[in-house]
Amino acid sequence: MSIEFRCKCPISSALDIIGDKWSLLIIRDMLFDNKKTFTDFSTSEESIATNILSSRLKFLEEVHIIKKSKAEGNLKSNIYTLTEKGLNLIPVIAEITIWSDENIRELNTTMADVDRENLKNNKQAVLDGIRQGYLKSIGAL
Amino acid sequence: MSIEFRCKCPISSALDIIGDKWSLLIIRDMLFDNKKTFTDFSTSEESIATNILSSRLKFLEEVHIIKKSKAEGNLKSNIYTLTEKGLNLIPVIAEITIWSDENIRELNTTMADVDRENLKNNKQAVLDGIRQGYLKSIGAL
Repeated sequence: MSIEFRCKCPISSALDIIGDKWSLLIIRDMLFDNKKTFTDFSTSEESIATNILSSRLKFLEEVHIIKKSKAEGNLKSNIYTLTEKGLNLIPVIAEITIWSDENIRELNTTMADVDRENLKNNKQAVLDGIRQGYLKSIGAL
Repeated sequence: MSIEFRCKCPISSALDIIGDKWSLLIIRDMLFDNKKTFTDFSTSEESIATNILSSRLKFLEEVHIIKKSKAEGNLKSNIYTLTEKGLNLIPVIAEITIWSDENIRELNTTMADVDRENLKNNKQAVLDGIRQGYLKSIGAL
């Protein structure tokens, strides 16, 4: 697989990989909703089209952000989990959450609450907790 | 203007606004390359198509991430600058830069260097410096 990077800028290169409307939501679903299978992801509130979901899962696997394995006792079912590169996106997702909470509530007045004070005041502990919680949920801790 | 938010999730809502391949690059160009005009942005290394650039500038203005004004002494030329909401994206861009530097160099081997140690060890000072530098560059400090 070869990715067409637009240039040598690190920001641009990251967006060439995760700068679409779906990749970070798939990762969010893994981290916060314990989602692991194609069916799990396809039932998200944002209603991702199955062909796009399929293509994004394949791409995220190719760039080593997620990995695919077989479900225990069910060789027909694929399980997707985050790799270290995927887990390293937790700080990006946290900053997006803080920005969203503080800056676009007036645009989306139905937006869910965020425990902003805890996230801002204990950021590293919250991020570590998300990582540890995820690793426990997939049996890696 | 009304934005169709996919749901009430803060992460998803943010991506409905900045989750495309160009918005954060336009903001990057403002922050780090002192770009201000349509012509400035259209000469970026990533070669954004002018119709997409035009549409993204209009959208970013509508959601109050950037604002448009007239150049001093040249009423024909529009100047785009970041608002407070736009400046508040600096931490998001910083975390994307750190993630990129540490996780996807193997995919884009020509990626430019990042002063990662400084960014990681003095993060708040670096972020404050970027904000202050930008505000000075537009004559707001």
